[in-house]
Amino acid sequence: MQDALIRLTDHWAGHGCLITQPMNTEVGAGTLNPATALRVLGPEPWRVAYVEPSVRPDDARYGDNPNRLQTHTQFQVILKPEPGDAQQLYLGSLEALGIDLRAHDVRFVEDDWASPALGAWGLGWEVWLDGLEITQFTYFQQSGGLTLDPVSVEITYGMERIIMALQGVSHFKDITYAPGISYGEAFGQAEYEMSRYYLDDADIGTVRELFEAYAAEARRMLDARLPVPAHSYVLKCSHAFNVLDSRGAIGTTERARAFARMRRLAHDAAELWVERRAELGHPLGDASTRAAEPEAAAGTLTIYPEISAPGVFALEIGVEELPPHEVGRTLDHVAAELTRGLEEAGLLSDAGEVHTYATPRRVVVVAGGVAPREPDTEQVVKGPRLSAAYDADGNPTRALQGFARGQGVDPSEVGTVTVGGGEYAGLVRPITGRPAAKVLAELLPVIVEGLRADKNMRWNAPGLSFARPVRWLLALLDEHEVPFEAGGISSGRITQVHRTATTTDVSVPDAGALLPTLRAHGIEPAVERRRSQIIEAAGALAADAGGTIDFQGERALVEEVVNLVEEPVAILGSFDASYLELPEEILTTVMKKHQRYLPVREPGGAGRLLPHFVTVANGECDHAAVRAGNEAVLRARYEDAAFFFQQDLRSAPEEIARGLDRLTFTERLGSMADRAGRIREIAAELAERAGLGAEEAAVLRRAGELAKFDLASSMVIELSGLAGTMAREYARRAGEDEAVARALYDMELPRSAGDALPSGTPGALLAVADRLDLLAGLFAVGSVPSGSSDPFGLRRAALGLTAILRGHERLAALTVEDGLLVAARHQPVEVTADAAAEAAGFVARRLERALLDDGHPIPVVRAVLPHAGSPAHAERAAVDLGKLLGDERFLRLTAALQRVLRIVPEGTAAGYDPGLFQEPAERRLEETFAAVREALPERAPLPEFTEAALPLAEPIDRYFDDVMVMAEDPALRANRLGLLASIRDLVDGALDWPLVHGGALGVGR
Amino acid sequence: MQDALIRLTDHWAGHGCLITQPMNTEVGAGTLNPATALRVLGPEPWRVAYVEPSVRPDDARYGDNPNRLQTHTQFQVILKPEPGDAQQLYLGSLEALGIDLRAHDVRFVEDDWASPALGAWGLGWEVWLDGLEITQFTYFQQSGGLTLDPVSVEITYGMERIIMALQGVSHFKDITYAPGISYGEAFGQAEYEMSRYYLDDADIGTVRELFEAYAAEARRMLDARLPVPAHSYVLKCSHAFNVLDSRGAIGTTERARAFARMRRLAHDAAELWVERRAELGHPLGDASTRAAEPEAAAGTLTIYPEISAPGVFALEIGVEELPPHEVGRTLDHVAAELTRGLEEAGLLSDAGEVHTYATPRRVVVVAGGVAPREPDTEQVVKGPRLSAAYDADGNPTRALQGFARGQGVDPSEVGTVTVGGGEYAGLVRPITGRPAAKVLAELLPVIVEGLRADKNMRWNAPGLSFARPVRWLLALLDEHEVPFEAGGISSGRITQVHRTATTTDVSVPDAGALLPTLRAHGIEPAVERRRSQIIEAAGALAADAGGTIDFQGERALVEEVVNLVEEPVAILGSFDASYLELPEEILTTVMKKHQRYLPVREPGGAGRLLPHFVTVANGECDHAAVRAGNEAVLRARYEDAAFFFQQDLRSAPEEIARGLDRLTFTERLGSMADRAGRIREIAAELAERAGLGAEEAAVLRRAGELAKFDLASSMVIELSGLAGTMAREYARRAGEDEAVARALYDMELPRSAGDALPSGTPGALLAVADRLDLLAGLFAVGSVPSGSSDPFGLRRAALGLTAILRGHERLAALTVEDGLLVAARHQPVEVTADAAAEAAGFVARRLERALLDDGHPIPVVRAVLPHAGSPAHAERAAVDLGKLLGDERFLRLTAALQRVLRIVPEGTAAGYDPGLFQEPAERRLEETFAAVREALPERAPLPEFTEAALPLAEPIDRYFDDVMVMAEDPALRANRLGLLASIRDLVDGALDWPLVHGGALGVGR
Repeated sequence: MQDALIRLTDHWAGHGCLITQPMNTEVGAGTLNPATALRVLGPEPWRVAYVEPSVRPDDARYGDNPNRLQTHTQFQVILKPEPGDAQQLYLGSLEALGIDLRAHDVRFVEDDWASPALGAWGLGWEVWLDGLEITQFTYFQQSGGLTLDPVSVEITYGMERIIMALQGVSHFKDITYAPGISYGEAFGQAEYEMSRYYLDDADIGTVRELFEAYAAEARRMLDARLPVPAHSYVLKCSHAFNVLDSRGAIGTTERARAFARMRRLAHDAAELWVERRAELGHPLGDASTRAAEPEAAAGTLTIYPEISAPGVFALEIGVEELPPHEVGRTLDHVAAELTRGLEEAGLLSDAGEVHTYATPRRVVVVAGGVAPREPDTEQVVKGPRLSAAYDADGNPTRALQGFARGQGVDPSEVGTVTVGGGEYAGLVRPITGRPAAKVLAELLPVIVEGLRADKNMRWNAPGLSFARPVRWLLALLDEHEVPFEAGGISSGRITQVHRTATTTDVSVPDAGALLPTLRAHGIEPAVERRRSQIIEAAGALAADAGGTIDFQGERALVEEVVNLVEEPVAILGSFDASYLELPEEILTTVMKKHQRYLPVREPGGAGRLLPHFVTVANGECDHAAVRAGNEAVLRARYEDAAFFFQQDLRSAPEEIARGLDRLTFTERLGSMADRAGRIREIAAELAERAGLGAEEAAVLRRAGELAKFDLASSMVIELSGLAGTMAREYARRAGEDEAVARALYDMELPRSAGDALPSGTPGALLAVADRLDLLAGLFAVGSVPSGSSDPFGLRRAALGLTAILRGHERLAALTVEDGLLVAARHQPVEVTADAAAEAAGFVARRLERALLDDGHPIPVVRAVLPHAGSPAHAERAAVDLGKLLGDERFLRLTAALQRVLRIVPEGTAAGYDPGLFQEPAERRLEETFAAVREALPERAPLPEFTEAALPLAEPIDRYFDDVMVMAEDPALRANRLGLLASIRDLVDGALDWPLVHGGALGVGR
Repeated sequence: MQDALIRLTDHWAGHGCLITQPMNTEVGAGTLNPATALRVLGPEPWRVAYVEPSVRPDDARYGDNPNRLQTHTQFQVILKPEPGDAQQLYLGSLEALGIDLRAHDVRFVEDDWASPALGAWGLGWEVWLDGLEITQFTYFQQSGGLTLDPVSVEITYGMERIIMALQGVSHFKDITYAPGISYGEAFGQAEYEMSRYYLDDADIGTVRELFEAYAAEARRMLDARLPVPAHSYVLKCSHAFNVLDSRGAIGTTERARAFARMRRLAHDAAELWVERRAELGHPLGDASTRAAEPEAAAGTLTIYPEISAPGVFALEIGVEELPPHEVGRTLDHVAAELTRGLEEAGLLSDAGEVHTYATPRRVVVVAGGVAPREPDTEQVVKGPRLSAAYDADGNPTRALQGFARGQGVDPSEVGTVTVGGGEYAGLVRPITGRPAAKVLAELLPVIVEGLRADKNMRWNAPGLSFARPVRWLLALLDEHEVPFEAGGISSGRITQVHRTATTTDVSVPDAGALLPTLRAHGIEPAVERRRSQIIEAAGALAADAGGTIDFQGERALVEEVVNLVEEPVAILGSFDASYLELPEEILTTVMKKHQRYLPVREPGGAGRLLPHFVTVANGECDHAAVRAGNEAVLRARYEDAAFFFQQDLRSAPEEIARGLDRLTFTERLGSMADRAGRIREIAAELAERAGLGAEEAAVLRRAGELAKFDLASSMVIELSGLAGTMAREYARRAGEDEAVARALYDMELPRSAGDALPSGTPGALLAVADRLDLLAGLFAVGSVPSGSSDPFGLRRAALGLTAILRGHERLAALTVEDGLLVAARHQPVEVTADAAAEAAGFVARRLERALLDDGHPIPVVRAVLPHAGSPAHAERAAVDLGKLLGDERFLRLTAALQRVLRIVPEGTAAGYDPGLFQEPAERRLEETFAAVREALPERAPLPEFTEAALPLAEPIDRYFDDVMVMAEDPALRANRLGLLASIRDLVDGALDWPLVHGGALGVGR
C-alpha cells in the first residue's frame, strides 16, 4: 500500500502538483485540508496532491468490519484550474498503480457531491474499477458558500479499497502495507483503541467543552482576520462534533445548531481567505475565467467551405461522461435546435433527414440532404414617398438624391416600390443566400452554448454551463470542416474514441464517415442498438446460467445501463447462494441501485432470484478479471448487508425505534422520533373519518407505535431505499401481525410516481399522515422546494399524497385542506393559514401535473382544478369532463352558465327578493333554480351534476333574452344580479366553468 | 524540496521502512509521533519513515527570520533494532538526495539527546554537511522513562536546512518547493498567520482550558487502558502548553507543574503501551537482545594459531565516531589492559613494546616482541599426608589409592610433595604454557567488554556497553587471525577505511601491515601526527591569509579537532569583515564551540580577529564546495547573532532583566528573577563582612540590580556560553559604570576549573552569592547530583566557590558554612541543618579533589580537611603541612598529640580537677596546657600553631611515662582522661592528627 501512495505521489508530482502533508489536526476528509478547502477559492492557480488519513469517528468498528475504519487513507489531488484532461491524467495514475486499463472495466459513474455543512458542491463521478468505487472525481463548483472561479478538479482516491482490490484481500487488516507487514499489524491496535475512544470512552463533557473552545477560538481568529488559524479551529470543531456524534451525545437541536455554527464559521473563514489573498495581490497569479476571457479575435477572416449539391452534415458534441438521464434529453435538444435552425434557413429540403445518436460521451446528429446554401431573397429599401421623390419635371428631388447617395447608387437607379399600400421611391436588392457552412457556423455555437441539464456546472470554458464539460466539437459538412468556436473549443474533424485506445484522437474524413469510424473503434453511437445488444447478450448469459432476466421489469435499469456505456460488454457474475437467504429486496437493491447489475431469476413469471447477475462493462476487457472484480464487490456489499441484517435482528422493533431519537429531522421540527409520533397521531385522527373497523384500528394503533422504526436500523441507515421493506421484514420476524407488518411497508408507498399504493387502509392512513406531516411542517418553517432543490422530497410527497387519495376509496372523502389542518395541529411550530394554503396549492400543482401525465388535456385538467382539494374527485371530474365534452346537453348547460358567470361582477352577493321580479322569465328562472338546488346532490360527479343542473339552461337563456339585467334602477339591477349570483354559487366548484368555455375545448364562441 | 522528500521516502522504503503519515495532531517533533514514541518501546521490531511537519510555536517569527519557522519539516526514520549499518544507510540517503559524498565533508559530530520531559535520552551525533547540521542521528536508549531493548536508531533530517544548502538560498521562503513554486509562495501566509496566532492572538484562557481538558482526557484514557488515544492527548497537551508558552503565559510554577504532569502522562502511556503490546502477544515479534541471546556454541573447537618466534600483535577496535574526549581515554584503557594481560601471561618480553594509535573510529594497539607462548609451569597436586599414605609395609593405603585413582595415575606414580612445611603424597604436573593466540583470545573479549565511557549506550550487541557501538574487531598475530568474539562480533583481519571509499572493507595481511594499510587509505592513526598535520596546515593557511592561529590558546579545540577526523584536511574560509563589529566573544564562541573552526588573528600577541577561519575536513574533498558550505553556515550563524545582538541593544539592561521572570529556575525555587534577587541579597549580606568601601558598595548595589539580566537576552538564550560576557557588553553600551560591567562579567567566573577568577571584590561577592544560592537551594529541595547527572552544575558551582574563596583574600574569612547559612535564610524553602551540612560536605569533597588536582598528596589533603569550611585556610594548611612534614619538631609534636588522641575514648568530656592530681607529671602537663592555650592564636596557620603547641610535646610524653592514665579508681581515671581530653579539644580542628600519623606520611610507627 505504501508503494501505491509513493507511486501516486510520483505520478502527480510529475504532473506539476505540489506535494504537501496531511493536515496536522484530525479531518474527516482531504477536502477539509486547507490545501483544498481554502486553496480552491479565489483566482489563484493551484495544483496539489497529498495523503490524508481521514478520521471518521462514526465509522469506528474496533477494526472488526472488513471495509470500515475510523481512519481511512485518502489520496487527494486538486487541479486548479481544471486542465481539460484531468480524466486522462487520472487514468494515467491508475496505470502508475499497475492497473491494466485494457483488462479492467474503468467507468465514470455519475455522482454529485454536496456538503451543505461546508456550503460546498460539485458535479462529477465515482470512478468504478470492475464495479468497485475507488475514486471520487469532482468538478468543484462552490466552497464555503462561494462560487469558484476557476473551477478545480478534485480527485479523491480511497486507498484501502483500491489496495484491497489490487491485492485481492477481503479485510483491510489483510492488506500488505509494506513488504512483510500487514495493515492490521501496523495499525490494528490504533484502529481498535481509537474506536474504543470514539464509540465508548470519549468523555462527552470534555469533548463538548473542546467544541465550545474551538468554536470560540475560530471566531476570535476571524475577528483577527487570520483565516488560516480560523480554518484550523473550524476543523477541530468539526472533529469534536463528530466525536460527540459517534458517542451518541448529539440531540436534534444541538446538531442543527452546531451545523449552523460550523457552516457559518467555515463560510466566514472562506470569505476572509479570499479577501486576504486579494490583499496580498494573489501571489500565485490569476487563473479565473474572467482573467482568461479571450480577446476578440479582431478582423480574422473565416473562410466557409461551400458544397455544390445537397450534402451530409455531422455534428458531434464530445463530453465527459453525462449522467445517464441527461443523455437522451441532451440529444433531443440538440437535434431539435439543429433541425429548427436548418429549416428556418431553408437548408433542410423535404428529402433531408436528421438522425440522432448518443452515448455518455457524445451527442451526434447527422443530417442528410442539406442544401448547399440558403435560398436567395430580396431586400426592399424604401426611399422618400414617390410624390416627394421627383419634382414636377420628373427630376429627382433633394430627398431622392440624399436617399440614393445613402444607398450608394445613382438616383437614376432608384425605382419604385410599394410598401403598405403606399408608393415610394426605393430599391430592391437581391440577397444571396449564405452558404450552409456559414449558417451552421452561426447556429452551432448557439446550440452548444444553449446546452443545459438538470444540474449544470461550469468548467474552464467561458460561456458554457452544462451537466459535464464539453471537450470536443466535430462538425463536418461532407468532407469540409465547419469552423466555429464555443467556450474556447474550436470545432474540427477529430473525434475521440475509447480512452484506452492506443490513439484516442481519430480524424474523420467526412460527415458520412463519422458513424463508421466510431463503430470501427468499438463505439456504438445508436442508443437502440446498444439496448438490443445489452438485452440480447445479457439474456443469453442468463440463459446459460439457467435463468432469465425480467427486462420488462428492469426497463429503467436497462435504460440507465444503455447510457452508461459506449460499447456494452455483458459479463455474467455469480455470488454465493447462501446470500439468497437475505430478503430479496436487499439483494436486488444492492445489485440494481448500487451496482447497476441485472438480476438473474428463475425462468417463468416473477421467478425467484438465482445467485447470478449480469454486469455490463464498457468495451472489451479481460472478462475473468472484470467478473472477479465485480463478484468481489458484490460479496463485500452482501457481507456488509448480512452483517447489518443480523445486527438488526438482534433487537426488537421497539428497541430499534429508540434510535429514532438520534436521527434529526430538522431543527425546528425535531427528531425522527418526534415525526413518527406526529404521524401516529395524525393517522389516528384521520382514521376516525375513515371509519375503521376494530381490527383495522388495532392494526393502525400497533403500526403507528412502530411507525418508521426501521429508519433507525443499520440496514436502512446503510440502504435508505429499503425503508418500509425492512420494517415489514423485521416486524414479521419479530412476530408482529402480518397486517401490521404490511401497514409498515404500506406507509412508505408510493415511493415514486407509478409505484404501488398502500394495499390496506391502516397503511394508507399512515402513508397519508406521513406526507401531510411533511408538508404541513416544512411549509410552516419555510423549507419549500425551489428550482431543482427539494431536499426533503416534498414534490414526491405531494404526488404520493394525491395518488393515495385518488386510489383509496375509503380516503376519498378526505380533502387535502382538511388533512393539512389536522397535520398542522400536531406540528411543534405554528402553521399559519398562509402556509397551509401554500401547501395545498403546492399539492394542487402536483395533482395538475399528475393528471396531465395521465393524458388528460390541459384545459380539462385546468377546468377540474377546483376539485384539487379532493384528488379523487378531481380525477373523476377530469374523466367525466373528457366524456361530457362530446355531450350536446352539457355544452348547452355550460354555455348558459358561462353567460351567467360573465355578467355577474366579482363580489356580487347572492340573494334576491322575488317581490321585485317584473318579468315572467325572472320568476321562471327563480323557480327552476330553487328546484335544481333542491335536486342537486352534494359533490355530485359531473354527469349527475349535469343531469341535475341541465333544467337551468333554457330558463337562463330566456332570462337573458327577456330581462334587462343591468336595469337603470339600482334596486332592480341588484336584485337581478343577486339571482344570477345565486346560480353562480350553486355551480361554483363543480368545474372552472369559464375555462371549459374559453379554452381549447372549443365550446361556445 | 518535495522531490527531496520523495527521494528520501523511496530510499527508506527500499530499506524496509514502513512509510507512514505525519501525526494528525500538532507535534513539536517527529519523535513525538506514536510511530516513534510508542513503537521504540518493547521488543517488537519496527522500521518506519515519515515526514513530520513539526510545530514549534516558540520559533514563530512571522516568516521573517530566514532560518526559523513555526512549522518546519522533519523527515524521521526509525530502525529498530539498530541494524548495525545505519550510518551507511544514512549516507546512502544523502546520495539519493544527490549529495556527492566525495566532494563534501560529511561528519558525525557528537551530540547526545535527552528530553527529561519525555523521560527519554539517547547517544549519537549531529551530522554535518560542510559544517551545517543537517541531521540528528541517535541511538535511542530510553523513552517514557523506560529502557529500550532493542535499541532503535532515530534519524531526523531537518529538511529546510538541507534544501537551503542544496539550493544555495539563504531564506527558507526562497526554497524552490516544487517546480515553479517557492516555499514562501506555498506556505508563507500560513507561516505568517500561525505566527500571529502563536505570538499574539491565541486566547490564553481558552488554550489553558484546552490544556486542562486534554490532560484530563489523557488520564481518563490511561484509566481505560487505551495508550493510543492517551498518547494522542498527551501530544495535544504538549502543544497547548507550547502555545501558552509562546504567548508568554506560563509562570514558573505553572511551567514546572505542567512539565511534571506531562511527563507523568507520557510515562504512563508508554508503560501502558508496553503492557498492552505484551498482552497482544507482540504481534510484530520479539527483537530484544534478550530474545537474541546467542545459544552457547556447544563443543565448537577453536584452533589457535601458533608462532614460533616473538611476533607482532595488532588489535584494532573499530567503532562508530567516538566523542573526541573519549578517544584518548579509550586508547589508554585498552593499551593498559592489553599490556597488563600480556605481561601477566609472561608474553611481553623486556624487548617487547606497545604502540598506541586512535582516531574517532578506531583504537589500535600494536605490540612487538610478543612471545609465542606462555612460559611452562608446574602444578603441585597434594594428596594424603605422607604418614597416612603408606602403611607400615610401605604399601599404598586406601587413602593413597583413592587419590591416585582420582588423579588417573597408578599409586606407584605418586611421589612426595612439601606444602606449607608438611609432607604429603602428591604429584607435580608440568603445565605447558598456552600459545600467545589463546591467551589473547581469552584476554581480548574481556577488554572489549570492559570498554566504558562517561556516558555509555547499548546497541544490538549483547554484553557490550560503550560510548558508541563497536563495529569490527581486528586481531592479528603476525599473519594469523586471533579468533575471539565479543558482543556478537567476531574478530578477523578486516579493517574499515573511509566510508566514502569504493571498498570500505580492507583485508590486512599481517599485524605489521595494519598501520601502512590505514595510511595507504588516507587514515592517519597516530594522534600526534594528526595534531602536527593540523597545526602545520592550518598555520600555513592562516599565514596565507596574513594571519596566525593561537594554537597555544586553542589547545583544547585543537585536541578536539584531532579526535574528530581521521584524515585532517585544513581548509581556509572567510567571512564578511563587517561581522567583526560584533563582540569578539560572539564570533569566537560560534566558531569554536559550534563549528570547531580555528579563528585566524592578526599576527603577534593576542591579535585581533581577522575575517578568516580554518576548518578541518575529514579526508579529501572538493575544497571549494566545502569552503563555500562552511562559509554559508557561518554567515547564517553570524546573521542570526547580529540579529539577536541588535535586538538586545534595543532594550536597556533593566528591560531585558524583566524577561528573567519568564525563565524558570526550578519549581520550588522560583524563576531566574527570583534567583537573581536572592543573589543580590546574599551578596549584600556577605558584603558587610568583607568591609567594602563606599565605591565598591555602590558597584555591588548596581551590579546586584542587574545580576544575571543577560540570561534573558536573545543572545544568551541562543548562546548560553556568553552569559556574563554579554552582560558586560550590554552594560557598557548602556552606559553603566565600567566597574559595574566588570562585576556582571566577574560574577559568572570561574566558568570551569582553571578559568580566571573574578577580578574585583563586588564581582567576587556576587559570584560567591550565586553559587551559595545554588547550593543552599538545591540541596534544600533534594536536587542533588548523582552519578554522572548534575543538571544544575552543582559540582562546578562548588568548585568555583572554593576557587574564589581560596583566591580572594578579602573573602578568605568567609567559611562555606557561614555562607550557606546566609544563603539558606534567603531561600523560599526551608533549608534544614542536614541539608546545609550535606551541602557543606559536598563542597568539602570538591575542595579535596581540587587540592589533590593541585598536587598535594592524599594524606596531606585528608589531614587538612577539617579546614574545608575555609578553603583558603585549608589550602594554606596543606601547603604548610607539606613543608612541616620535613620538620622534626612538628613530627615530635604530632607523635605526642597522637598518643593523647589514641587513649581518650570517644565521648570523653574535657575538664579536670587539679585537686585530684597525684603525680608531678600531671601537674606539669596541666600547667603547660594552660600556657599553650593562652598563647595559641585562633585559627593559626599551621607553622604558628606548631610553634605555639610544641611545648606540649615533652610534658605529654613524660605524663604517659609517669602516670597510669587508666587508674583503677574511677574518679582518678576520669580526671586523668579529662585532662587529656582538654588537650584533644585544644588541638582539634587544626589538622586531622590521626591521619597525619597513620597515613602514608610515615610519621610514627
